[in-house]
Amino acid sequence: MTATDQIGNRSADSLLRDRAAQVIPGGMWGHMRAAAVPEGYPQFFTGGKGARVTDADGRDYIDFMCSWGPIVLGHQHPAVEEAAAARWRGGDCLNGPTDQAVELAELLVRTMPSADWALFQKNGTDATTGCVTIARARTGRRRILVARGAYHGAVPWCSPSLVGVTAEDRAHLAYYEFNDIASLEQAVADAGEDLAGVIVSAFRHDLGRALEMPDPEFATAVRALCDRTGAALILDDVRAGFRLHLGGSWEQYGVRPDLSAYSKAIANGHPLSAIIGGDAWREAAATVFVTGSFWYTAAPMAAAIATLNELHRVDGPAVMRASGERLRAGLAEQAARHGFEVVQSGPPAMPLMQFVGDTGDKLGEAFCQEALRRGVYMHHRHNMFLGTAHTAEEIDRALDVTDSAFSALARRRG
Amino acid sequence: MTATDQIGNRSADSLLRDRAAQVIPGGMWGHMRAAAVPEGYPQFFTGGKGARVTDADGRDYIDFMCSWGPIVLGHQHPAVEEAAAARWRGGDCLNGPTDQAVELAELLVRTMPSADWALFQKNGTDATTGCVTIARARTGRRRILVARGAYHGAVPWCSPSLVGVTAEDRAHLAYYEFNDIASLEQAVADAGEDLAGVIVSAFRHDLGRALEMPDPEFATAVRALCDRTGAALILDDVRAGFRLHLGGSWEQYGVRPDLSAYSKAIANGHPLSAIIGGDAWREAAATVFVTGSFWYTAAPMAAAIATLNELHRVDGPAVMRASGERLRAGLAEQAARHGFEVVQSGPPAMPLMQFVGDTGDKLGEAFCQEALRRGVYMHHRHNMFLGTAHTAEEIDRALDVTDSAFSALARRRG
Repeated sequence: MTATDQIGNRSADSLLRDRAAQVIPGGMWGHMRAAAVPEGYPQFFTGGKGARVTDADGRDYIDFMCSWGPIVLGHQHPAVEEAAAARWRGGDCLNGPTDQAVELAELLVRTMPSADWALFQKNGTDATTGCVTIARARTGRRRILVARGAYHGAVPWCSPSLVGVTAEDRAHLAYYEFNDIASLEQAVADAGEDLAGVIVSAFRHDLGRALEMPDPEFATAVRALCDRTGAALILDDVRAGFRLHLGGSWEQYGVRPDLSAYSKAIANGHPLSAIIGGDAWREAAATVFVTGSFWYTAAPMAAAIATLNELHRVDGPAVMRASGERLRAGLAEQAARHGFEVVQSGPPAMPLMQFVGDTGDKLGEAFCQEALRRGVYMHHRHNMFLGTAHTAEEIDRALDVTDSAFSALARRRG
Repeated sequence: MTATDQIGNRSADSLLRDRAAQVIPGGMWGHMRAAAVPEGYPQFFTGGKGARVTDADGRDYIDFMCSWGPIVLGHQHPAVEEAAAARWRGGDCLNGPTDQAVELAELLVRTMPSADWALFQKNGTDATTGCVTIARARTGRRRILVARGAYHGAVPWCSPSLVGVTAEDRAHLAYYEFNDIASLEQAVADAGEDLAGVIVSAFRHDLGRALEMPDPEFATAVRALCDRTGAALILDDVRAGFRLHLGGSWEQYGVRPDLSAYSKAIANGHPLSAIIGGDAWREAAATVFVTGSFWYTAAPMAAAIATLNELHRVDGPAVMRASGERLRAGLAEQAARHGFEVVQSGPPAMPLMQFVGDTGDKLGEAFCQEALRRGVYMHHRHNMFLGTAHTAEEIDRALDVTDSAFSALARRRG
């Protein structure tokens, strides 16, 4: 759709929202519901190319959400799309997998030091839920330790909402504080003989608070506690996977999980998730029953192989780190120059900028709205995502916009 | 791969299985694991076209599994693939849905009398789990009644396996017998004030037993009990949906569910599932938090629109019923002529043939192996699936093969 689809002064997005309100509860579901972002954000899109997305009214944005993670090489990456298209032309959803299921598992095992095997699904939640099930299957125990406030998916055992959830859905969960070894030790002690696993995110990325990297001592302590008790160290690498380190996000701390959950960036936007694990957990992984109608489809696996090969080829994590550092340095300079105190947190490839003392996120919201109006799509409460399509030139163009956004904020304040 | 990929007398499939055994627990996961079908079935495929699939060794089969349900218009249906490809070229996984999310929801609402709204996911299990969550959210109650032996997905609350599952995962389930009104009434009475919903499959399709259509009185009784108690009637139409009746599989009984789960055939092999529901359940559906990284991807929605339009255009259910009846009549005649007593059950579009008194399914297994060897892919324990690509000519070709398979069985019997 383009601006010519607008009727009177109604935008295409607004007309679509009206239609959606009739046939989709609340107008949209889940994390992409526009009600969860400030006014002015589009709900509907028509396409993407490289680091850009286009909304239903034909407006282009330099995109710092990357579809909330999946797009790691930019939209419509030729090698990925060719690999997927070749597979679709042959047949995608068959009576079993193609050889690409094996090839992808082999590639993950070669890429990830903690992987001796892989299993494929569709949702990140499928992978985290599968890890918990495998942990319980092998240990014969029930208790799973979860960092308070961490997001591990959107089904009753882990959903951030308790609506429609029963107490029993979480009967065997207990909580620790991320980066707080004492709280984890206490939770391990409380679990006694019933500890099946500890699930931990690659870093702390709870919505609305500053991102927090793991203290290497904390990461080491999680490993040691799991080794001592025989519980599974489950790394939820769904959000961070393939952006920080291709070998797994805790490789940089020398800590190897027993089981890891991947999704989002694994196939540059094609629907796929994966559980990877070590040999000790292989038999349990073979005995649990996990499946889905589309878990064997070949095109997303072909896309994943192409994505991983490209990330290896260009050293994707290094490219994204450099771009993220360029963005961060620019934003820091601009904030200081315009007289704003900001906190930038998280790994450079998955940044978040917040204003100090920003009650109700009002400044963050206004800043992102000003940027959006000028063609840069950012988020004020959720970590953002960079991809390899965020070249230095795109970052610099985005920084021109954020400079104007800071100016506008300064004028409003003034 | 083709036969030229074979090394010595090893088949490509066997070589791939050896590689898979190294990097995939048990060599493969879930319902497409070749260990679950008789010897001789291929594990790996290379493609599909119309009613045919091709295995990793280049052997073609007339396929009566249709990828275990998803393929309802034949593989590589031009209208569906063009719609999906057009969407991929524009961009598929964006920062929000495209207008196709709205269009598809509108189309489902127009097509299904019980639908006032729709929500989209990836797995059938996402849809059944979402229905249960919505039922609990609206009623504020917990108990869900499930037919004993029914399959509603592969996560701990409903998995057919108890490995890695805790008692609490099923704390609020209770069981009734499909088609047994008294058992359902008893389960409703036992639930007392805590009854949130009754989940029921379109027909009874438990693995390994004769398929059983719902008694219309049973269907009516489920509706009446839900009306009386305010519980949700949840139709799990994941497996049967779009094959029996485009308006929903219980339309033929005049029974309309409160919430229904769809997946499999909805997009002719593209990964998508849907919850549809009535207005009374809309607010609850808007308040539960259900989401996934790929739940907004546009290409499967474009494929679903094309699939539903094509199913309407050709009257897909009528085509599949006629083909299924042709197959059934042919098999009945052949069985009688070769001196075998068989039971054919289920709706013609989703048939199952079993041999009477077939201890350990030995005859069924041998029959399917003989058919497979001759280029017809059938299943002896799980309902099969027809699609609109099963023309009368394809059915007749398949019947030539099954006639030979019966002959071979008769010779073996001596």
